[in-house]
Amino acid sequence: MKVVGIVGSLRKDSIHRQIFNHYREISSDSFELEEGVIAGIPMFDGEGMDNEQVATLAEQISNADAVIFFSPEYNYSVSGALKNAIDWLSRTNPQPFAGKPASIVGASPGNVGTARMQYHLRQIGVFLDLRFLNKPEVMIAGVFNKVKDGRIVDEATVEFLQSHAKRFAEFVNQ
Amino acid sequence: MKVVGIVGSLRKDSIHRQIFNHYREISSDSFELEEGVIAGIPMFDGEGMDNEQVATLAEQISNADAVIFFSPEYNYSVSGALKNAIDWLSRTNPQPFAGKPASIVGASPGNVGTARMQYHLRQIGVFLDLRFLNKPEVMIAGVFNKVKDGRIVDEATVEFLQSHAKRFAEFVNQ
Amino acid sequence: MKVVGIVGSLRKDSIHRQIFNHYREISSDSFELEEGVIAGIPMFDGEGMDNEQVATLAEQISNADAVIFFSPEYNYSVSGALKNAIDWLSRTNPQPFAGKPASIVGASPGNVGTARMQYHLRQIGVFLDLRFLNKPEVMIAGVFNKVKDGRIVDEATVEFLQSHAKRFAEFVNQ
Amino acid sequence: MKVVGIVGSLRKDSIHRQIFNHYREISSDSFELEEGVIAGIPMFDGEGMDNEQVATLAEQISNADAVIFFSPEYNYSVSGALKNAIDWLSRTNPQPFAGKPASIVGASPGNVGTARMQYHLRQIGVFLDLRFLNKPEVMIAGVFNKVKDGRIVDEATVEFLQSHAKRFAEFVNQ
Repeated sequence: MKVVGIVGSLRKDSIHRQIFNHYREISSDSFELEEGVIAGIPMFDGEGMDNEQVATLAEQISNADAVIFFSPEYNYSVSGALKNAIDWLSRTNPQPFAGKPASIVGASPGNVGTARMQYHLRQIGVFLDLRFLNKPEVMIAGVFNKVKDGRIVDEATVEFLQSHAKRFAEFVNQ
Repeated sequence: MKVVGIVGSLRKDSIHRQIFNHYREISSDSFELEEGVIAGIPMFDGEGMDNEQVATLAEQISNADAVIFFSPEYNYSVSGALKNAIDWLSRTNPQPFAGKPASIVGASPGNVGTARMQYHLRQIGVFLDLRFLNKPEVMIAGVFNKVKDGRIVDEATVEFLQSHAKRFAEFVNQ
Repeated sequence: MKVVGIVGSLRKDSIHRQIFNHYREISSDSFELEEGVIAGIPMFDGEGMDNEQVATLAEQISNADAVIFFSPEYNYSVSGALKNAIDWLSRTNPQPFAGKPASIVGASPGNVGTARMQYHLRQIGVFLDLRFLNKPEVMIAGVFNKVKDGRIVDEATVEFLQSHAKRFAEFVNQ
Repeated sequence: MKVVGIVGSLRKDSIHRQIFNHYREISSDSFELEEGVIAGIPMFDGEGMDNEQVATLAEQISNADAVIFFSPEYNYSVSGALKNAIDWLSRTNPQPFAGKPASIVGASPGNVGTARMQYHLRQIGVFLDLRFLNKPEVMIAGVFNKVKDGRIVDEATVEFLQSHAKRFAEFVNQ
């Protein structure tokens, strides 16, 4: 099983990239996780619809069995960078998200753990025809105590993500 | 009264830009509407927080009395371009949206008229501390029959936007 | 295939009940649609969790293959009556919605056609573990011209609902 | 200053009622908080629009300066009981919420602290023309450790609610 992971933050030291990297190991018994890179995609302006990076990313998603978004919450919603990538991808043909199983991994310093972003992304997914896993939802709170130097150091979070990966693989197999 | 209008689409022939242009005339008895340009803002990546265009735009908004978003709905939410601009602006100091009265003008070819985008933008506005006008909401349906060659040709829509501008000016004055 | 239809309005002359009745005929080639009655369910107050009507309704849903909500939009969200029924049902054991395919049929006098309600119901469905059909969404605008004397008199709407029923049946079969 | 508090749970031992009671003391320097009782309101069915309890509650809200909802999250949204009360009140004339400043106090056992409910209530408030305070939002997480025997026993929460009450009073005075 092949899963494309999209990291919604472009920061070099992004917490979500660190989580993505560790999650890739954690989930390796369940599926192969490869990154769908959005850094470098230009701002969508309706001109020149034949962007090569977007076309490659669209094909990568089309060929995968499922998608996981590793996405921060910016201003109570998805990041502009992630939304812009989606705006491009939704206009490629075939639309690569259509019918794909999907899940969200979100983490935040505070309590709410990206809940606000996640329901926005789920609403976007209705249009894209993504089939989001309902449970478990992954909303990692207090992330600065749980991720250090590129590793998830909180054992309960590691175990939870392991069980999430297993459950998601079952969901994709259905 | 000075209002900054932000056009959420970067398309050259954007319907929302055409509406913005016509709305500027329509509302000229109520306030002066000037554009806050988001085209050209790079993708936010957490590096180099001192982008000049963003700083200028932030100052323009800070000096204005209010903000109006002329925003399309992309994939059931705000455009990546608009969200990215907000992601930058929210990190400037002072945060320019804080406490500002705001409204949304949305238009779409179909029936729903950007409703889905508007409640996402309102949720984003809770974080930004924008004070959105509740009523009237501006959701222009069937826009391709109502806007032609840069003008709103539907008389009922023109009158509605006129009353919206008056109502918004009262709201800002409070 | 057996589908439970829940009518979210308690009005005697409810438009959504009229649509439910006609939809039952329209969809009869695809599945058997029977009503899950919510009228008469008391307000949930945490006391006396053994309400008989709720238990019967929960069993009816558990035994069905899928659920369709025929739901108006009240104050930009689901009706209190429908939400109260869900609040009861979510506390029965087994939780009857868990894993069930679901869809929403909404109609409104204006343009927006219950979009605002539908994304609230979809968010509620994440908790309930409902698997909502993404497309087509059913948002019937201008309903007072389309439903008369208990029948949907707009031919395009009838055909659309027919195709919705077929598509939903395929979705449930997956 | 007079504020009506509406408790969204009908449970006898409701956590939100306990918080309401303590908050009434906490906020007594800032405003007088009296309950707007929703227990006993029948399910809205479009018949007999002249319910006496609803009329009394509507008048109480109309005469108040502002409204605070003490509301749990049921199934990722507002409780059916609260939504039903709103469905009734929105149909009284004058609509009592129109133009009123409002705020939300939510508490939950887990981390997310009713965030999902709060944005639904804010969207409902757009229709009702409520003017919600943006900040601070009150989302009390881990409430079972913070409320005991009818009192908020967590000192930080008490102080936070005190500052919320002060800030809300300023907001209402504007």
